[in-house]
Amino acid sequence: MSDVYVVGIDMIKFGRFADKSVPELGAEAALMALADAGLGIMDMQAVYCGNLMQADAMVGQRILREIGQTGVPVVNCANACATGATAFREGWMSIKAGMYDLVLAVGVEQMGKGLLGGAGGRKGIPKEGLLGSGTMPAVFAEAGMEHTRKYGTTFAQFAKVSVKNHQHSTLNPKAMYQIETPLEMVMNAEMISYPNTKLMCSVNVDGSAAAVLASEKKVKELGLMDRAVKVRASVLTSDPWQERDLVMPDVNSCTRLAAKEAYERAGVGPQDIDLVELHDCFATAEILHYENLGLCADGEAGKLIDSGATALGGKIPVNVSGGLLSKGHPLGATGIANIYEVTTHLRGEAGKRQVEGARFGMTHVIGLGSACAIHILEK
Amino acid sequence: MSDVYVVGIDMIKFGRFADKSVPELGAEAALMALADAGLGIMDMQAVYCGNLMQADAMVGQRILREIGQTGVPVVNCANACATGATAFREGWMSIKAGMYDLVLAVGVEQMGKGLLGGAGGRKGIPKEGLLGSGTMPAVFAEAGMEHTRKYGTTFAQFAKVSVKNHQHSTLNPKAMYQIETPLEMVMNAEMISYPNTKLMCSVNVDGSAAAVLASEKKVKELGLMDRAVKVRASVLTSDPWQERDLVMPDVNSCTRLAAKEAYERAGVGPQDIDLVELHDCFATAEILHYENLGLCADGEAGKLIDSGATALGGKIPVNVSGGLLSKGHPLGATGIANIYEVTTHLRGEAGKRQVEGARFGMTHVIGLGSACAIHILEK
Repeated sequence: MSDVYVVGIDMIKFGRFADKSVPELGAEAALMALADAGLGIMDMQAVYCGNLMQADAMVGQRILREIGQTGVPVVNCANACATGATAFREGWMSIKAGMYDLVLAVGVEQMGKGLLGGAGGRKGIPKEGLLGSGTMPAVFAEAGMEHTRKYGTTFAQFAKVSVKNHQHSTLNPKAMYQIETPLEMVMNAEMISYPNTKLMCSVNVDGSAAAVLASEKKVKELGLMDRAVKVRASVLTSDPWQERDLVMPDVNSCTRLAAKEAYERAGVGPQDIDLVELHDCFATAEILHYENLGLCADGEAGKLIDSGATALGGKIPVNVSGGLLSKGHPLGATGIANIYEVTTHLRGEAGKRQVEGARFGMTHVIGLGSACAIHILEK
Repeated sequence: MSDVYVVGIDMIKFGRFADKSVPELGAEAALMALADAGLGIMDMQAVYCGNLMQADAMVGQRILREIGQTGVPVVNCANACATGATAFREGWMSIKAGMYDLVLAVGVEQMGKGLLGGAGGRKGIPKEGLLGSGTMPAVFAEAGMEHTRKYGTTFAQFAKVSVKNHQHSTLNPKAMYQIETPLEMVMNAEMISYPNTKLMCSVNVDGSAAAVLASEKKVKELGLMDRAVKVRASVLTSDPWQERDLVMPDVNSCTRLAAKEAYERAGVGPQDIDLVELHDCFATAEILHYENLGLCADGEAGKLIDSGATALGGKIPVNVSGGLLSKGHPLGATGIANIYEVTTHLRGEAGKRQVEGARFGMTHVIGLGSACAIHILEK
């Protein structure tokens, strides 16, 4: 099987674009990714599109109507918050399968207001479906409190995640916000669902991101190896069945399953990873995923955030982009946007927020309901 | 790359099941396909789900909650009327890529009333999206009339498609209807959009179909080669750009593009194909696709239906299942249901409607907006 490389990738600055259509938003990122690769839409042999909220509306094909209707296969994927990563992975798979040498993956979302407020916030989402049996803030609050009960993790430790990620985002011009949020400010913000205050919840924004994937043969043929980043592992999981006492959906097990497989497939361990973009949909989630991804031992996540190891300049910087908490979380775009961030560091093109000497990076998204996607990238 | 085989496949009898949920409907077909393969859900390494109308609701994962939550990757695909075929193809691709040896593909749909009535029939479908600029009946009526203008195709010739497919369905216990519809009855039925009467429009039904796909290695290991059917080609296209005078969406070009590629990839021609399940969403569509798929020369489709060649017992039987016109058309299920029909014939298990000695079969679906999927299967 051919190795697969990212040869072009970009994202729009996340924000609110009520005056644009979903295909228009997707087309912007697609054109940017193509330009980054120095290629055009006529070079693409297939298109994989991730969009959640208009998943039935042929968004991929409508993006092609904006940028060039070439007749190539278009696949539309939806997988909750792993939607964009799923589209990327299916594109990767099509190259692995030897079907194509150059594939475009696009993730895009225009957020309805209040979706994250809970199940039934938008028509068409069944209560037992996407959002599980509780509202999103409640699920991740409860999961955080379970960590507190087991390990004594404090409100301040959870809040520090938000301080860190907001600080990171001041260095990322593509993040929704570039604002420092000191610990006091985070802890004193409006309480949404203890221990997550408003500044500890991901930002509802519109956005898009896109990547051009290529087979090794094509990368060499086009002379693109200099900036190409190898996809060392691409893993997708869903929730395994388990006996649990809690009524809330499990937010941990599919990540643990995916991390184990990702490290095995990549042939590296957590100690080899130089930066991580993980799914901080709430500040509590980042704490849980430190352990789920093996960045520290179980129960040690509070100490890890206290130590500064996950801040830029630390041993294993996490969410240097600002994360979902400050960069923003346009569901279908998020999976490719975090691959953009890691790729940018591996290329040494991340400017003021560059993780120096980064060789391996990991991206992680999780959608309740359930889908977890992990990619390990290598330069 | 490994050859990929269908080792288990089945569909529920199409009908109206308002009391069941979409995941329940999908689970039924999934269990039937697994039973057909003599395998269980624990054997499946990935699940690909096609569902259009709840595309944002994690239908694949919810099917797994019904039949066994194993933690495997689940991908939800949507591609208009090619939704089920797209899920099947992505599953096929994952085996081609060497990622998995056993994969489950499920297609399912619970139809809202009036969707085929036109754009905006259901909330959430943008007017310029899935259904194109005209209503479905208008689009396929206009395309039929264009054929009439160019080649003199008659109302009776279009109507004969419906007579034939309804006749076929009397031999298919899984079709929605088993009713003979003589030519007079078809031509005198309520006019929907000339030349298509109500009996010349596909039937709005609920349904599900599922397939178990396996790598060649696994088929041999499990001793399943006897009933296994090889996927000789799997092709997906979208509408290529073209200059056209008509205001209606083009219903032909993506099929022509796909057929050309499918024959090339399979290394066979139309003369080698023993039966075809094609997308007769309206009677006019079947006439057009005879030519689009190369079953006859351009302009000869009227003569082809007159000759009886496409009826059971003819040279190239088309829609022996009863087709969308009488078996029914549950959007997300249709692509896998027509693969079920062809597979059943290639296995020699089609009972009274068996196409004798069938070795190669072709399936075809097209979704406006646009996606065309063609599979060529071989025993």
